Amino acid sequence: MEMKLPGQEGFEASSAPRNIPSGELDSNPDPGTGPSPDGPSDTESKELGVPKDPLLFIQLNELLGWPQALEWRETGRWVLFEEKLEVAAGRWSAPHVPTLALPSLQKLRSLLAEGLVLLDCPAQSLLELVEQVTRVESLSPELRGQLQALLLQRPQHYNQTTGTRPCWGSTHPRKASDNEEAPLREQCQNPLRQKLPPGAEAGTVLAGELGFLAQPLGAFVRLRNPVVLGSLTEVSLPSRFFCLLLGPCMLGKGYHEMGRAAAVLLSDPQFQWSVRRASNLHDLLAALDAFLEEVTVLPPGRWDPTARIPPPKCLPSQHKRLPSQQREIRGPAVPRLTSAEDRHRHGPHAHSPELQRTGRKVPWYPSDFLDALHLQCFSAVLYIYLATVTNAITFGGLLGDATDGAQGVLESFLGTAVAGAAFCLMAGQPLTILSSTGPVLVFERLLFSFSRDYSLDYLPFRLWVGIWVATFCLVLVATEASVLVRYFTRFTEEGFCALISLIFIYDAVGKMLNLTHTYPIQKPGSSAYGCLCQYPGPGGNESQWIRTRPKDRDDIVSMDLGLINASLLPPPECTRQGGHPRGPGCHTVPDIAFFSLLLFLTSFFFAMALKCVKTSRFFPSVVRKGLSDFSSVLAILLGCGLDAFLGLATPKLMVPREFKPTLPGRGWLVSPFGANPWWWSVAAALPALLLSILIFMDQQITAVILNRMEYRLQKGAGFHLDLFCVAVLMLLTSALGLPWYVSATVISLAHMDSLRRESRACAPGERPNFLGIREQRLTGLVVFILTGASIFLAPVLKFIPMPVLYGIFLYMGVAALSSIQFTNRVKLLLMPAKHQPDLLLLRHVPLTRVHLFTAIQLACLGLLWIIKSTPAAIIFPLMLLGLVGVRKALERVFSPQELLWLDELMPEEERSIPEKGLEPEHSFSGSDSEDSELMYQPKAPEINISVN
Amino acid sequence: MEMKLPGQEGFEASSAPRNIPSGELDSNPDPGTGPSPDGPSDTESKELGVPKDPLLFIQLNELLGWPQALEWRETGRWVLFEEKLEVAAGRWSAPHVPTLALPSLQKLRSLLAEGLVLLDCPAQSLLELVEQVTRVESLSPELRGQLQALLLQRPQHYNQTTGTRPCWGSTHPRKASDNEEAPLREQCQNPLRQKLPPGAEAGTVLAGELGFLAQPLGAFVRLRNPVVLGSLTEVSLPSRFFCLLLGPCMLGKGYHEMGRAAAVLLSDPQFQWSVRRASNLHDLLAALDAFLEEVTVLPPGRWDPTARIPPPKCLPSQHKRLPSQQREIRGPAVPRLTSAEDRHRHGPHAHSPELQRTGRKVPWYPSDFLDALHLQCFSAVLYIYLATVTNAITFGGLLGDATDGAQGVLESFLGTAVAGAAFCLMAGQPLTILSSTGPVLVFERLLFSFSRDYSLDYLPFRLWVGIWVATFCLVLVATEASVLVRYFTRFTEEGFCALISLIFIYDAVGKMLNLTHTYPIQKPGSSAYGCLCQYPGPGGNESQWIRTRPKDRDDIVSMDLGLINASLLPPPECTRQGGHPRGPGCHTVPDIAFFSLLLFLTSFFFAMALKCVKTSRFFPSVVRKGLSDFSSVLAILLGCGLDAFLGLATPKLMVPREFKPTLPGRGWLVSPFGANPWWWSVAAALPALLLSILIFMDQQITAVILNRMEYRLQKGAGFHLDLFCVAVLMLLTSALGLPWYVSATVISLAHMDSLRRESRACAPGERPNFLGIREQRLTGLVVFILTGASIFLAPVLKFIPMPVLYGIFLYMGVAALSSIQFTNRVKLLLMPAKHQPDLLLLRHVPLTRVHLFTAIQLACLGLLWIIKSTPAAIIFPLMLLGLVGVRKALERVFSPQELLWLDELMPEEERSIPEKGLEPEHSFSGSDSEDSELMYQPKAPEINISVN
Repeated sequence: MEMKLPGQEGFEASSAPRNIPSGELDSNPDPGTGPSPDGPSDTESKELGVPKDPLLFIQLNELLGWPQALEWRETGRWVLFEEKLEVAAGRWSAPHVPTLALPSLQKLRSLLAEGLVLLDCPAQSLLELVEQVTRVESLSPELRGQLQALLLQRPQHYNQTTGTRPCWGSTHPRKASDNEEAPLREQCQNPLRQKLPPGAEAGTVLAGELGFLAQPLGAFVRLRNPVVLGSLTEVSLPSRFFCLLLGPCMLGKGYHEMGRAAAVLLSDPQFQWSVRRASNLHDLLAALDAFLEEVTVLPPGRWDPTARIPPPKCLPSQHKRLPSQQREIRGPAVPRLTSAEDRHRHGPHAHSPELQRTGRKVPWYPSDFLDALHLQCFSAVLYIYLATVTNAITFGGLLGDATDGAQGVLESFLGTAVAGAAFCLMAGQPLTILSSTGPVLVFERLLFSFSRDYSLDYLPFRLWVGIWVATFCLVLVATEASVLVRYFTRFTEEGFCALISLIFIYDAVGKMLNLTHTYPIQKPGSSAYGCLCQYPGPGGNESQWIRTRPKDRDDIVSMDLGLINASLLPPPECTRQGGHPRGPGCHTVPDIAFFSLLLFLTSFFFAMALKCVKTSRFFPSVVRKGLSDFSSVLAILLGCGLDAFLGLATPKLMVPREFKPTLPGRGWLVSPFGANPWWWSVAAALPALLLSILIFMDQQITAVILNRMEYRLQKGAGFHLDLFCVAVLMLLTSALGLPWYVSATVISLAHMDSLRRESRACAPGERPNFLGIREQRLTGLVVFILTGASIFLAPVLKFIPMPVLYGIFLYMGVAALSSIQFTNRVKLLLMPAKHQPDLLLLRHVPLTRVHLFTAIQLACLGLLWIIKSTPAAIIFPLMLLGLVGVRKALERVFSPQELLWLDELMPEEERSIPEKGLEPEHSFSGSDSEDSELMYQPKAPEINISVN
Repeated sequence: MEMKLPGQEGFEASSAPRNIPSGELDSNPDPGTGPSPDGPSDTESKELGVPKDPLLFIQLNELLGWPQALEWRETGRWVLFEEKLEVAAGRWSAPHVPTLALPSLQKLRSLLAEGLVLLDCPAQSLLELVEQVTRVESLSPELRGQLQALLLQRPQHYNQTTGTRPCWGSTHPRKASDNEEAPLREQCQNPLRQKLPPGAEAGTVLAGELGFLAQPLGAFVRLRNPVVLGSLTEVSLPSRFFCLLLGPCMLGKGYHEMGRAAAVLLSDPQFQWSVRRASNLHDLLAALDAFLEEVTVLPPGRWDPTARIPPPKCLPSQHKRLPSQQREIRGPAVPRLTSAEDRHRHGPHAHSPELQRTGRKVPWYPSDFLDALHLQCFSAVLYIYLATVTNAITFGGLLGDATDGAQGVLESFLGTAVAGAAFCLMAGQPLTILSSTGPVLVFERLLFSFSRDYSLDYLPFRLWVGIWVATFCLVLVATEASVLVRYFTRFTEEGFCALISLIFIYDAVGKMLNLTHTYPIQKPGSSAYGCLCQYPGPGGNESQWIRTRPKDRDDIVSMDLGLINASLLPPPECTRQGGHPRGPGCHTVPDIAFFSLLLFLTSFFFAMALKCVKTSRFFPSVVRKGLSDFSSVLAILLGCGLDAFLGLATPKLMVPREFKPTLPGRGWLVSPFGANPWWWSVAAALPALLLSILIFMDQQITAVILNRMEYRLQKGAGFHLDLFCVAVLMLLTSALGLPWYVSATVISLAHMDSLRRESRACAPGERPNFLGIREQRLTGLVVFILTGASIFLAPVLKFIPMPVLYGIFLYMGVAALSSIQFTNRVKLLLMPAKHQPDLLLLRHVPLTRVHLFTAIQLACLGLLWIIKSTPAAIIFPLMLLGLVGVRKALERVFSPQELLWLDELMPEEERSIPEKGLEPEHSFSGSDSEDSELMYQPKAPEINISVN
């Protein structure tokens, strides 16, 4: 368990697809990353070895300008969603869910029923196709010629900047093999081309009014072999479907709407599937009827049909819609599931068997280095290096504060580098990043005050704690105790995370306020005023200087100072000149308190604001991601810049000038006993037991999260090997007096996120598909080597003001607190029921029960806080066990169904969008559905609870 | 033109319905305030004298528990939108747009086609109704009895906490007139009852599976006279429709969905209209078919049918859907339109004829006082009083700064009270609130520096400016020049508003930074250090005190101070004790600079945050509205509290201790010449001309906005009378040396908003209907009398620190700047096209043209800023005319169509909702439609441009 690394809160949403259907993994292993179930991103089915229908790009060419200037113009396109050409604005609309009028579908149906349907048409070129399509009895030869010329006319696509150029109107028939209908340059250069996966096919709908036709002309063609039909489509793709909908002039936008209906039909995965296999008109109409059976209808009086619905975040599974044949085709995929996916199918309460397995990592070892040879790893190293250094600085500064300098920034850098690099080389899951974490910091602070209370020599005592912890952890490894993690539910984790976050917030504010004691504010009535610089001289009489106190101010009013050699030089200058600063005001430094407060607030709010940049509309996504990922680095830089600009004597980070321990007078090796009696080395087992609970929790929950099935890790996990490494490193760091390290959830997730492999091809409105993680040891290793080298950054680090670090500290606490579902439930307490977001939780659990659950959590938190404030604070890891007990007791208060929603299920995605008017305005992604099985997800420890 | 009053930015959205169809006003005068065209809020049609069909409340009772424990349970209800009972959570869902599956509609159609249809059924009670409905041949007598008993069983409503109590199962037949089927207490106490207007009727759909039926049983009943059917419905309303859909068990939720389909049909205004007039089954089915013709269809693959769509902000006009008979019925309303509405029908470019009319207000005068006798007026007075006082304090403080005390807070209070009260008594539009406004403040500042540059006696010079302005204004009144306002388009107004806002922001920050010169920050190397308190004595030698300068610091190092009687008392104490503070540090007050900065930032951000509370989900709407309306008052209070808590000597608001002009030594009457040469009184005509332009703009644009047709003012406007009043008051205030006053847009709008009359009855999901404004003179008068009495607040006002006022000043500038469409277009420059909000503007104008327009505005703004920074700044009202010229020239650059979207149309409602993930997530209110005529609105000056 660790507090969130600033700036990385968003990763869980993007990197951890949450909504995994519990029972539907066979055909659809990763619906959370986008509308993949039926979409073009057939990566997963390819991986499973099942051939899938190619993706279809559909384009609507409309015939405009009757009667004077007939021309074809592309007015819409579909892959998953609809894009409409805004003719006046000259741009494609944002992708949106297409809406249709029911009559247009019905008209289309009757037009197709009476029209020409060619399935497996052998045409090899547009010319052949046009000839076949116009072979209709109702057309006179003259009309047929006109129509053919019209159909061969080159359509205008939006990309074409040149005007209409009907270059084919006069071409004479060519041979079928003739390759002069090669795609135009624009078609190949179309940026959409790169978004479509290889093998994609095109479908074209031609629709419009043609005055010289006496009756409507409908044709639907499926080409036997897809062929590039010249510049018919915007993108040079081989065409599979061709649909012609022409007719005499009629009122309204009849043919436009019919064309859209045909395009929407073709873009429907189910219709596509059927029509690819249709053998006659009847099959085609049956597919259309099946589509109609499934449509959603919005009543006219309550819905403006021209409104555009944005693509939902995730789509409902199409599995139910599959006809039996299709299901059979998909069926064989099931046995070929990867073991990770297979493992996952044990239902919501089963835990991953990684917890039982010990890692077998040797066969992967060479590839762990070879797989890192990719440019992406370079940027990952930079990003994680900066995050690690920020962590090392922040925790180093805080540890130095907490332990009175027994540890400091130098130890933090050194320990991070040594422990991290060693872990990356040895561990079972080398993607894990070791770091100081919040709980351990809190415990270390308590341990230090404990040892101070008993006048112990801290480092030797700590060494024994470390030895005991390592021993306990090795016992845990030997007994394969990682399976115990399953007893910790979200209730426990949230309570713990909330406590740690509150301690962070409390400490940050407390330390900031402490500065105002060190640098007091001079109030008008204050008497600590004035300072003289006195030089040694005959008249100087030191005993005359009386420190004024507010109580007896009148006594000094007419005091004879009797100074001879004195000046009004500032104290530092005075000392430099050989004088002595004298006076009650010599020790007060004005302005520092408020300036520190400004720095504190600035770095806090700046980091918070940068974090929000990620979801703003401004700047390209690369810039946004950069700003938000590096929010804490940038906030520290801003704080340092402000401080340097004004040049005030704010308290700065203490950095040793040379490579030696921060605590003066100790060597690198901690002596095993120091000044402590020998029996303290045995007594240390008690706090070690508490620490072991912490370490175990922190380490194992992180490991479970990192090895979640949705990350599709190929090389397996190594739960016990990792815990073993942590235990060994614990020994090492204790012996050297370095901080203790465990796996840090958020920074490790950030590491994995920066190594994501994603499909580049994705349709407009679709999210990129997640392919896997570059699993290797090299990035982590390089990061820690760089961190080690950064020890020599000391001359730079000493410019960092402490208030800035306190601000970052506060930011970390607030960010961690705001990321847990518990916080959202507390917020519900303040919201009138009417304005509450439409959370699934609230659809299934009565509000009073939700509030009761929240209130119990709040009460537990209050109790924890009280215990934490007493001298018994050091036992706080035991509180964890108490929380587990409370959670067990809750099973008598709440029904299993309620606990499922309140405690078991993964938190839903945030759906509370700030409204614009007085009325609440919900977003409604497709996942916002009570029946969607996407919402049910097996219980696993979640990253939200972590405190970095 | 005036800057926005803090905290009142939201009013324009709520109080000023923007989307008025230009040509469809006949049947539908106010579609902007909610889905009124067809909804239950038939106030406007009642006003127009056209009887309208009553509102229908529809309830779905489902038969659950077959076969053991049959019971009826209400599972859904509809008025405008659907509310679903969340059975598990025990709460009603938020109202949402109902979605249906097409097959359920088709099944319903065939069930009704084969079933029993009773139109104008004479039943007088549930019993009679049940008897009639069960009179079906297919039922055996035994089954009929069972069915009747079942139908008489009392349904469970969510409100009922008691369980099922089939109290009617055993009742024997009663007479039709028997009144024992009285509604239950729960039915009458249902809170929904108050939301429905009087005359509302109920429709009930009973649906479910009944195993003992051999075939489906469908019945549709329209009662001849609506009658309360016992506790059948949740609310005790007379029932008009009754629909029974029962049948043998089938797979899925067939009957539930059919029941929903029937309910949605009944809730459709068009279907309702038809079915109320249907005379046979054929009519009923035709109405259903007409409904099907109009539905919107969402494809199954791209839309999760269980997602809930929130009610759109405004609905499309149902006018096109009306059959001809209905249109005829609605037709006669047209001639009965009020004159204000009639006036509005001249198309998008006509201006309101108020501009030509002079006010005839005398007949309304008595009612102007009697109409104020309502409780609402009390809270309006409180609210507007606080806003006025805040304005008076802020502008008073700033005017004092700007004119070196020639005017101050006292003048501001006195002038506001006198001018405001006089205006409220005399003016044509007494809802207007007079106030100091941004442009006049800026001009006054420029005028002051001008007169200082020429060493003029300011107040006499200003008097002559006022005399000339009054003269010019009276000329404008005499020539009825108000019609000129039409030449100012949004381009001009936005440019001007942006300039004023930027000046506000620049000045606020500048004044704040100036404080750091007054209270310098003591840097470590600074030599302005030290201060002694010297008492008159023999050894004291004043000439020895040399003010240290950084340059020759070494000279004073070993200076012999030779002090005998001295102490280190703080300067104020020292002076009190009879000594003299001596030393370079005596005048520096530490900590003030940073503390002032903190106060400045705190009040700014606190006010901004409070403003945003209005649209948050927390707290009941009353609290939110209060917090956001009083944001500036609360921010000032917070600042004062912080300041008082720390007790530092921050610069405070200068308030005179007695009732006399702030400038020492002047009487209340300004002498007409003072020390100025006589010819300056003539030369004053030149700046007066400039000021007249400002005053004219500011006053008339506000007047046009306040008298907009959508506020439905009954008592008419008084454009010229108002300008006349302003001119006369100008004379008065100039003669007394008080600030100048014109109508303040935002505070006047806030005044009107606090006097809105709204319909209390509104259906779930519907917004309250706007009925009108309480037009009277009393609230304004009381506000200004109270403001006058507040002159005696001086002992309190002197605790307000100036940095707090600067913060509010900054807030006003930022709020005004962020409210104009220009700012949104500037933001577009920074957004990648992909992430831009789906604004209508962008659908119709190419992005490059939008950017070009924005760039031209930016260039104009830059030019204005440069002119403003030169000594010629005082001519800035002339820039307005320059902007008009630029706007004219733009007509050669942009097409009329583009200018229509960029400059003419009312700004669309903000639709840019911060997205949650990486992908942009648009809200899609129903108004987001390119074809909806709701979006086209006649050009009128908009309030966004105003600077309070």
